[in-house]
Amino acid sequence: MKNFSLGILLVFSVMAQAQIARVEPPFWWEGMQRDSLQLLVYGKDIASYEVEASAEMPILEVTKTENPNYLFVTINSASVAAGDYELRFQKEGSPQIKQPYSFKKRREHSALRKGFDNADLIYLLMPDRFANGNPAGDSHPKMVEKADRTKPDGRHGGDIKGIIDHLDYLKDLGATAIWSTPLCEDDDEAYSYHGYAQSDVYAIDPRYGSNEDYVQLSTELHKRGMKLIHDYVTNHWGLQHWIIQDLPTRDWIHQFDAFTNTNHRMTTQFDPYAAQIDQKIYEEGWFVPTMPDLNQNNPLVLNYLIQNAIWWVEYADLDGLRVDTYSYNHKQGIAKWTKALMDEYPNFNIVGEVWLHDSAQIAYWQKDSKIGALQDYNTHLPTVMDFTLHDALDKIFVEEEQWNQGIIRVYENFVNDLFYPNPNNILVFAENHDTQRFNTRVKGAFEDYKLAMSLICTTRGIPQVYYGSEIGMQGDKNKGDGDIRHDFPGGWPADKQNAFLPQSEKNGRNAYQEQYFNFSKKLFNWRKANPVVHTGKLLQYVPDKNLYVYFRYNAEGDRVMVILNLSRKKQTLDLERFNEGLAGHKQGLELLTGKALQLTDTLSVMPRTPMIINLTR
Amino acid sequence: MKNFSLGILLVFSVMAQAQIARVEPPFWWEGMQRDSLQLLVYGKDIASYEVEASAEMPILEVTKTENPNYLFVTINSASVAAGDYELRFQKEGSPQIKQPYSFKKRREHSALRKGFDNADLIYLLMPDRFANGNPAGDSHPKMVEKADRTKPDGRHGGDIKGIIDHLDYLKDLGATAIWSTPLCEDDDEAYSYHGYAQSDVYAIDPRYGSNEDYVQLSTELHKRGMKLIHDYVTNHWGLQHWIIQDLPTRDWIHQFDAFTNTNHRMTTQFDPYAAQIDQKIYEEGWFVPTMPDLNQNNPLVLNYLIQNAIWWVEYADLDGLRVDTYSYNHKQGIAKWTKALMDEYPNFNIVGEVWLHDSAQIAYWQKDSKIGALQDYNTHLPTVMDFTLHDALDKIFVEEEQWNQGIIRVYENFVNDLFYPNPNNILVFAENHDTQRFNTRVKGAFEDYKLAMSLICTTRGIPQVYYGSEIGMQGDKNKGDGDIRHDFPGGWPADKQNAFLPQSEKNGRNAYQEQYFNFSKKLFNWRKANPVVHTGKLLQYVPDKNLYVYFRYNAEGDRVMVILNLSRKKQTLDLERFNEGLAGHKQGLELLTGKALQLTDTLSVMPRTPMIINLTR
Repeated sequence: MKNFSLGILLVFSVMAQAQIARVEPPFWWEGMQRDSLQLLVYGKDIASYEVEASAEMPILEVTKTENPNYLFVTINSASVAAGDYELRFQKEGSPQIKQPYSFKKRREHSALRKGFDNADLIYLLMPDRFANGNPAGDSHPKMVEKADRTKPDGRHGGDIKGIIDHLDYLKDLGATAIWSTPLCEDDDEAYSYHGYAQSDVYAIDPRYGSNEDYVQLSTELHKRGMKLIHDYVTNHWGLQHWIIQDLPTRDWIHQFDAFTNTNHRMTTQFDPYAAQIDQKIYEEGWFVPTMPDLNQNNPLVLNYLIQNAIWWVEYADLDGLRVDTYSYNHKQGIAKWTKALMDEYPNFNIVGEVWLHDSAQIAYWQKDSKIGALQDYNTHLPTVMDFTLHDALDKIFVEEEQWNQGIIRVYENFVNDLFYPNPNNILVFAENHDTQRFNTRVKGAFEDYKLAMSLICTTRGIPQVYYGSEIGMQGDKNKGDGDIRHDFPGGWPADKQNAFLPQSEKNGRNAYQEQYFNFSKKLFNWRKANPVVHTGKLLQYVPDKNLYVYFRYNAEGDRVMVILNLSRKKQTLDLERFNEGLAGHKQGLELLTGKALQLTDTLSVMPRTPMIINLTR
Repeated sequence: MKNFSLGILLVFSVMAQAQIARVEPPFWWEGMQRDSLQLLVYGKDIASYEVEASAEMPILEVTKTENPNYLFVTINSASVAAGDYELRFQKEGSPQIKQPYSFKKRREHSALRKGFDNADLIYLLMPDRFANGNPAGDSHPKMVEKADRTKPDGRHGGDIKGIIDHLDYLKDLGATAIWSTPLCEDDDEAYSYHGYAQSDVYAIDPRYGSNEDYVQLSTELHKRGMKLIHDYVTNHWGLQHWIIQDLPTRDWIHQFDAFTNTNHRMTTQFDPYAAQIDQKIYEEGWFVPTMPDLNQNNPLVLNYLIQNAIWWVEYADLDGLRVDTYSYNHKQGIAKWTKALMDEYPNFNIVGEVWLHDSAQIAYWQKDSKIGALQDYNTHLPTVMDFTLHDALDKIFVEEEQWNQGIIRVYENFVNDLFYPNPNNILVFAENHDTQRFNTRVKGAFEDYKLAMSLICTTRGIPQVYYGSEIGMQGDKNKGDGDIRHDFPGGWPADKQNAFLPQSEKNGRNAYQEQYFNFSKKLFNWRKANPVVHTGKLLQYVPDKNLYVYFRYNAEGDRVMVILNLSRKKQTLDLERFNEGLAGHKQGLELLTGKALQLTDTLSVMPRTPMIINLTR
């Protein structure tokens, strides 16, 4: 491994004229909740300069590091009005450097923006693999990796315009929010399409589009009543990040004598008996040699990451953040980061990736967790991911029913909501960009997709679906990540088939895809129109013979009965058992068949079939 | 199912003279912490009598039920001195009935008796299957089921005398406490040997001996510095219990229109979404038709069970209770029961059987659990059982190492100690009378027994071993419970072999048994002499290549390093990784080989082998 030292300097070609190569954040806003702003100023030997600022933008503190090319200038931003100001840098014998800096006006209601919530259905996509709206930009002279659609792990050319072009498709499908994997610049020489090894966190990767394109995506989503969730990476940057190439401080990142991989043992972070070295290697070890691990325990780093995230929320008018590898960060650091975001946007939502296999362990990481409190820890993270439900869904369709096998796993997962401070703020999903594709897991069984999606869309929490599954897309994680990240058919001009289009249109969806799409569209749009499954209470019954019954109901009198029959037998339910859930309702309209049902005596349930029933009296 | 009503009367043959058939508890003690005593008085039409008592034993309250054959007479027992008193029952036109009642003096220090704890190693045995000290008593004229040693599920004749006869063997082995499955009278017509369907909870089953024999067992244990743990059943009695045959109140037990089995879904008791009917059937449903489910929510029942348990502690000078099917009881009722016991004996210990497969769920049931507190619940139960460790031990010896397989499961189990209010008060075990026999699970692999017992004896918690395993006994749960409850060879006079005796003696242990015994004896006695593994702190390292290292250490400077190499390869450890655990110690004495070790550079560990090293500087 390359041992990063302070001696590595960028070529300051830009600075020949300007002396200041970067100021970050590049601009800010008036009236933010945070009352200070720490500007990172980067320029050759800039630390040898004295700095002063416009009187309206008073400097609180100037911090120098062991690298003379950095100055951290902390501004009292509390009462800075929108406008153009400047920083002035002076040194005896050198000409004064003037650096403009501006504060902007915020959007109305920006501070109280409401984050994504239970009313949403999140569509997760990978921008390189979804749709290519601008083939001319697939490669970029500044960026090392060029497009090559023949490589499963190469760049395929999808971009922001491609997403925008298909927002009507997504709206029609019933998605209300998109979570795109990262769009910031990633200049790694390989695998750059995933975007998790970022080289500039203030710039959209030019192969995806511009910062302005990203704002347009947000605007177009909002026009349609849809939301934008930004995938944020606090834990690491790419080796090519310009700051990594000339570190402000040696401890900006975690460094070892030789390359040290994280041990990926997440439980070391709360093991009461953990050896320090195991904790350290987990948190400070790197994912891969091209992703230096950031030190969120360094206040300069932490502040940089906080301001950068706020900058994106404000700049791109975001509706939420998804935080990558949340628990791999410095524990206290990431909690401070999260609290800072939530203090700035109290109604916002952030979902953290905490990939554990135990509900109580996941619950540890949710805001105000009583389990986290056992170790005086509070992440302030509003939303976590239901990885244990994912684990259950990974098993129940491919195993025989036994005492502890089959749909009972799903029931037992919800029992553990006991542990969560806020069970409604849990992302529920059958798959994501890092897991086996659900449709492959179940070998393309449509009935299994129907069962899984019926659950995801009607249980508590915030549903998240994965691009392509709505047309039955498959892909095998065992063949590599590229295989679970196939291009969406029709996203590229050259594609022979266009699955964004209905079967009735030329080259549109085939029959297999059409049935998935029609089912998904019906279910997702039904969910959108039925608040009772967003925020209603849950009542569940112990599954019997691999058949699971639960109810969602609210104070407004809405009530839905859901039946998931995983067994391969037709079953007849004696409805008396469900009196508490039926609560006097004697009729229902089943969504998927459109049939009206009498619910007074018994009910027949077809094999391997879900039923979603709006109840009436 | 038989629907129990109040019309079923015993034949009051005894009462022809006495009118009073039973008073329970049969006697009590002066100076108890509880300040009242509720006497159950049973006699034909006794409720029609007026009752008065000796002036020294004032009556607080008389409770009648719908069954005229019961009176519950509550005494102000706070200041009743030891002595003989009487109750007098009067009715116009009937002769007065005098019923003697006595209070006894307590043993010195009875109230502050110390329960079993981390210093102990508990030997679990089934009295019918351990040793037959009195073959003449194998059957009993009063008891329905007669001895038949040819039946795996029949009575084999083991008894209290058999246990007493082998206490020296157990002491030599290194056990410090015994937990015998129940010894109270069980007059079921079949399976009565297990003792969980009791017909009289104030009497030792005559086939095991007398109440006095039980006291003698306790005395003989205490003489040897050993402890007695009584297996208590609060959840159910046998159908033949005399009170069940003439119920004081219909709701003394849970009754249904037709026989209703518990659904065994333990999680319904804390599922935040549970349907009431599922919770009810779990808690109120019966185990089997011959075990009526007691209603601990009935104050008369609860009080009866509290007083009965206290009576046994006091009468037999007990060192602890093990409570059967703890979580199947009425939740609030069993918490009151447990609190009452612990209020009476604040230094006592009670371990409850809470057979769940999730650490946080088990932790819910331990005293002062923060997880229980999420539902405002506190059992007051000091000790729970580490069923998740048992689950791990069930798997790790018979699976290949993978990311989440092998000894990592054990490591991860202890991570979850985070959830427990008191991780030291957890029973650790590889097997019990309800599980697969460990030696069968591992197909008689001696190295696996060594690894498992090394873990059980050196990790945190209170170790519990199961009779017979110390001589390599096997038995297959898949063949029925009888197969995991074989007779201990040599426990019966007719046995050809006597595994209580060393290999050197005639008909003593064979070579296979001897190696198990010698290993067990060495390990158990080493544990007894090394308080650092009783109460020392634990420090653990993430396993690598199926090899797990941990340390126990205390403020007195004692320090033990344990290495469990589950892999089938010899491994060489770079000791630098373990600096925190070694804490400057450079030498060690390994228990099982007796070898002195230098611990300065590397350490070789043989395949599938444990090492237990007392460290020195």
